[in-house]
Amino acid sequence: MADLPKGNAVIGQSGGPTAVINQSLVGVIESIKPGGPIQRLMGAVHGVRGIKEGQFIDLLGRCPDQLERIATTPCAALGSTRDKPDADYCKALFEVFKKNDVRYFFYIGGNDSADTARIVYEMGCEANYPLRVFHIPKTIDNDLRLTDHCPGYGSAARFVASAIRGDDRDNASLPGVKIDIIMGRHAGWLTAASVLGRMDDSCGPHLVYVPEAPVSREKFVDDVAAAYAKHGRCLVAMSEGVEDIDGKSWGEKIVESAERDSHGNVQLSGSGALGDFFAEVVKKDVAAKLGGKKLRVRADTFGYLQRSFAGYASPVDQAEARMAGQKAVEYVLAGHESGTVAFKRVGEGKNYAVECFRGELRDVARETKDLPKDWINKTGNGITQAFIDYALPLIGDLPKLGHFWEK
Amino acid sequence: MADLPKGNAVIGQSGGPTAVINQSLVGVIESIKPGGPIQRLMGAVHGVRGIKEGQFIDLLGRCPDQLERIATTPCAALGSTRDKPDADYCKALFEVFKKNDVRYFFYIGGNDSADTARIVYEMGCEANYPLRVFHIPKTIDNDLRLTDHCPGYGSAARFVASAIRGDDRDNASLPGVKIDIIMGRHAGWLTAASVLGRMDDSCGPHLVYVPEAPVSREKFVDDVAAAYAKHGRCLVAMSEGVEDIDGKSWGEKIVESAERDSHGNVQLSGSGALGDFFAEVVKKDVAAKLGGKKLRVRADTFGYLQRSFAGYASPVDQAEARMAGQKAVEYVLAGHESGTVAFKRVGEGKNYAVECFRGELRDVARETKDLPKDWINKTGNGITQAFIDYALPLIGDLPKLGHFWEK
Repeated sequence: MADLPKGNAVIGQSGGPTAVINQSLVGVIESIKPGGPIQRLMGAVHGVRGIKEGQFIDLLGRCPDQLERIATTPCAALGSTRDKPDADYCKALFEVFKKNDVRYFFYIGGNDSADTARIVYEMGCEANYPLRVFHIPKTIDNDLRLTDHCPGYGSAARFVASAIRGDDRDNASLPGVKIDIIMGRHAGWLTAASVLGRMDDSCGPHLVYVPEAPVSREKFVDDVAAAYAKHGRCLVAMSEGVEDIDGKSWGEKIVESAERDSHGNVQLSGSGALGDFFAEVVKKDVAAKLGGKKLRVRADTFGYLQRSFAGYASPVDQAEARMAGQKAVEYVLAGHESGTVAFKRVGEGKNYAVECFRGELRDVARETKDLPKDWINKTGNGITQAFIDYALPLIGDLPKLGHFWEK
Repeated sequence: MADLPKGNAVIGQSGGPTAVINQSLVGVIESIKPGGPIQRLMGAVHGVRGIKEGQFIDLLGRCPDQLERIATTPCAALGSTRDKPDADYCKALFEVFKKNDVRYFFYIGGNDSADTARIVYEMGCEANYPLRVFHIPKTIDNDLRLTDHCPGYGSAARFVASAIRGDDRDNASLPGVKIDIIMGRHAGWLTAASVLGRMDDSCGPHLVYVPEAPVSREKFVDDVAAAYAKHGRCLVAMSEGVEDIDGKSWGEKIVESAERDSHGNVQLSGSGALGDFFAEVVKKDVAAKLGGKKLRVRADTFGYLQRSFAGYASPVDQAEARMAGQKAVEYVLAGHESGTVAFKRVGEGKNYAVECFRGELRDVARETKDLPKDWINKTGNGITQAFIDYALPLIGDLPKLGHFWEK
């Protein structure tokens, strides 16, 4: 074991929760053993806000059963925060760290949290108060750089794939046009996961729209009309961040139009406005294009269930998120002063496997990673096999459904 | 075995799908053995519409593996319909029955389908073409009379309870006001199931609104403000059919107001409009009541996932729906000419068990069953223990989650 400062550690959770963010938390807790350099592990209540306000829970010495229950509990057991600290805020954190003899800081979060971790680490160096800082990745958006994929994504993708697989059967039962709005403001990773639910070519999603491939109202209408003509129904998976061809998101446009009509603020996330808007477009434009056909049109916004649904996490994602927490402690105990935990894929398909490696905070902070352009089909309304090969091992087994037309 | 007419049977599925409607279908299929009075079992594609149009699938002689996959597939494997036949339509059905030597008709559906079955049965008697007609209950709404509960309800209730259990953790992670809109236009059974997800008194849902207990805007605002003041957050479960105190549903009011503003038709089911409306009410009125506090407010509409989500059905509900299909055939083979399958509860709590009995079609047709008034708390914003005792055995085990504040 490296020669490490004796002292306390703080751990916090940040940003939008996932179904496995507590696996990483428990991975850290269970890896800190008595007799090592870390004396206390202090859980910050609501992330950096809890640190600033001195609100901590002691995390060591917990009963393994309780930890296991917490590990399988979705969302941040310590509470989360949307606070993005500026320099003054960071200085305040630092004062609390000093006062509590904190020498180690683990932060579970996305790219913003990695940036916070980076800033705190650098301030420690400058202040000659060496603080060892590790970031543990989590996001259902799967948009962090460096790592093959992000803890939290597999479970959200599993939820979306199962929801789509079932909703496609609903759409086949009572045929019409169904629009499902899926989380992802800037990247289409989670919406792309809708295709993992597709059983065969007759099944939906028949159209998939992601932020990386803008779509005009006209093209959307043409696409839906063509799919409906072919299948007698149409299931659409659409990212909440999908853009018009002028580069502005459809969500923003709807908000602006609502404001022009003086209907007050429309909150897009946690709202059905985008789905309702495109449902109206189908009722008007697609129905007209199909010769005035009366269409059954519905929209659902999957919303927070994608990240919080209890009891349906991906077993692969659970195990990897746990490992990410364990590895953060391992890297610290090996003497590393800062970093992030990242996954490298070392086996494909049925031999799928990952190894962890330590990355630099600056390489995961701030910037995000889009869905590769060549994983979107040429017509900008579907997802290719390359994505399926990438994502299928992350979500665990899906329920196998049956048709009467199968052999 | 009773002296039964030799001939063919038709089976159809009707109305909004459930996660277990195919269990009942497979229960019928597997109970019809070669050498009995039923020669062919013809699956009507999209219910009565398929009968009228002569669209059938042969269902006997299928491989058991395929049937098992279909049984666990959500939504109507034969296709469903919203058609509610009038006298002429029924006459047309009858012609097809005669032409195909159909002597038995099984119809899986809700109260409207039971009424269709009743009409068809009576027409057969009058026309001196005896047709044996059985209704097999299904609805996520749980609002059929006669039976203790309806196949399909347990799985939808399981989905809602798990969604709420997880979403409550989300709301605890990032505190604010969250409104979840749950299916149920006329009865609050499914919304009431939200309380099955509650782990302890600190957990949501903190408020539950069902159609049986109208709520004014003022009372809603007072309730949310009080819950927020107590818990520092508030999770609301609300039926899509919740009413204002003048007896008009809030959904209708929003549609009317949207039409007045010439925003065209607002579709309430498969739309986020109701949740978005109450989210705005919270942002304005509750925030003001709490002294201008800036509140994080979100709304989700659980939508079609409640009835169609793949891979999360209640095992109890699956087994009971299967049994309902089997019993329908049993009653027919025992010589009964018509009826519905109903459940009687013969054990409570851990000793929960049901027995089936045959009911009359007229006793389940048309009318529906509300949530008992005394299962709603006195303040009209919560659900009592009596409901929990009733519903908990129907949904299977829920995931056990953990807190840091537990012993």
